[in-house]
Amino acid sequence: GLNSPFEVFIEKYTNFIPEEIPLLLKQIKPEITVVSRKDLEENDQSFLEKIKGKSSAILIPGDPFVATTHNSLRLAAIQRGFKCRIIHNTSIISAAASVSGLSTYRFGRTVTCPFPNNASEFPYEIIKLNKQISAHTLVLLDIKQRTGEFLAINEAISILLELEEKKQETVFTNTSLVVGLAQIGSENEVISAGVAEEIITFAWRDIGPPQAMIVCSETLQFTEEEALQTLWKVELSNQGID
Amino acid sequence: GLNSPFEVFIEKYTNFIPEEIPLLLKQIKPEITVVSRKDLEENDQSFLEKIKGKSSAILIPGDPFVATTHNSLRLAAIQRGFKCRIIHNTSIISAAASVSGLSTYRFGRTVTCPFPNNASEFPYEIIKLNKQISAHTLVLLDIKQRTGEFLAINEAISILLELEEKKQETVFTNTSLVVGLAQIGSENEVISAGVAEEIITFAWRDIGPPQAMIVCSETLQFTEEEALQTLWKVELSNQGID
Repeated sequence: GLNSPFEVFIEKYTNFIPEEIPLLLKQIKPEITVVSRKDLEENDQSFLEKIKGKSSAILIPGDPFVATTHNSLRLAAIQRGFKCRIIHNTSIISAAASVSGLSTYRFGRTVTCPFPNNASEFPYEIIKLNKQISAHTLVLLDIKQRTGEFLAINEAISILLELEEKKQETVFTNTSLVVGLAQIGSENEVISAGVAEEIITFAWRDIGPPQAMIVCSETLQFTEEEALQTLWKVELSNQGID
Repeated sequence: GLNSPFEVFIEKYTNFIPEEIPLLLKQIKPEITVVSRKDLEENDQSFLEKIKGKSSAILIPGDPFVATTHNSLRLAAIQRGFKCRIIHNTSIISAAASVSGLSTYRFGRTVTCPFPNNASEFPYEIIKLNKQISAHTLVLLDIKQRTGEFLAINEAISILLELEEKKQETVFTNTSLVVGLAQIGSENEVISAGVAEEIITFAWRDIGPPQAMIVCSETLQFTEEEALQTLWKVELSNQGID
């Protein structure tokens, strides 16, 4: 645990973490070091050189290998003869999907929606691919931890509706079913579900990051319908499959 | 936490959990009650009646809503006016995918492979659907916690190869890439990757449950190739996309 003689690092740039967490950790382990993106990405070789021969722990938000940063660091470490031990953690990938009330087994590929100045058709394409196999899509929304910027759920909906207007493939429309999730697992958790034109009117920006958006395929199983109705008061026309 | 005046229940039938966990929990909270599948599924209404008006916690292995049992219980509780608070947990859904070295974003729908006496073409069909959108498949292997039975990775491979022989759709063959994962997150974790006819020869049954199997789509990104080569010494012909 944290009380062992390990040197302990924490990174807080791949996701937003509450201010209290590093403060709390410093109470247990005062000499905890915050490492930057630069330390672990650009200067990863000198970082590894520094911790070589010692026992070190790097604390990161979420599942350690969902972000490519940590996977690259693991590969660089192993290539240099380090022994790595991983302690897994809750991830938005499973938490967002499962808390929504939709079947975890019916989620297809996950995608991140970038900021509008970094526009991409990729989120639209992934939703389209997933729909082809009757799968839901977990859309994660981009953040810039350093500046506190984040994409809000209604902004992502608007990006997808614009792509729909451009491509006209009936992938994501005003009547597409959307589950919006903000601050999952925290006391401020907000979850809301409904059609896109309804969810887009909600003041998501006021809730703050992290936010994730689940887009449903047209087909819902009866158990999923029941869950969305019970949990988030969604009104659904009877479209169930099972 | 566990020290609060909550009544605490634990269920250990939806997954194998190490014997030490309930013993350790009982040291913190001696009056912890083990609940059976029957309590939470068939008799869920009387279970809810029993805990009505009190603050109770139910501890479960993995992410609380990956198994349908707990989602049904949540719905029944909410329909009866209970207030539910969820503390998320690490799930095999994200841990297995991310620890493999494959991109979490390239996983499609997850599927459970049942025991041969409960044979189904569903795992084969899901792998086929995922391949259509260049997605990997996480195949979870069935367990019977009560009797200690579990499906081992080589048995699942053999089930899929038999389905291939029957259906002839080149979905899962001897040369399909497979990552086998046993006891993820424990000290006895074993991960091995290679083509199906190689991974099937491994004595997975000796390692014990839980085991999960990741089947790769034909297409690997260069970063995924590098990860499989570095982490699990997989020899790959140069097939990368990126």
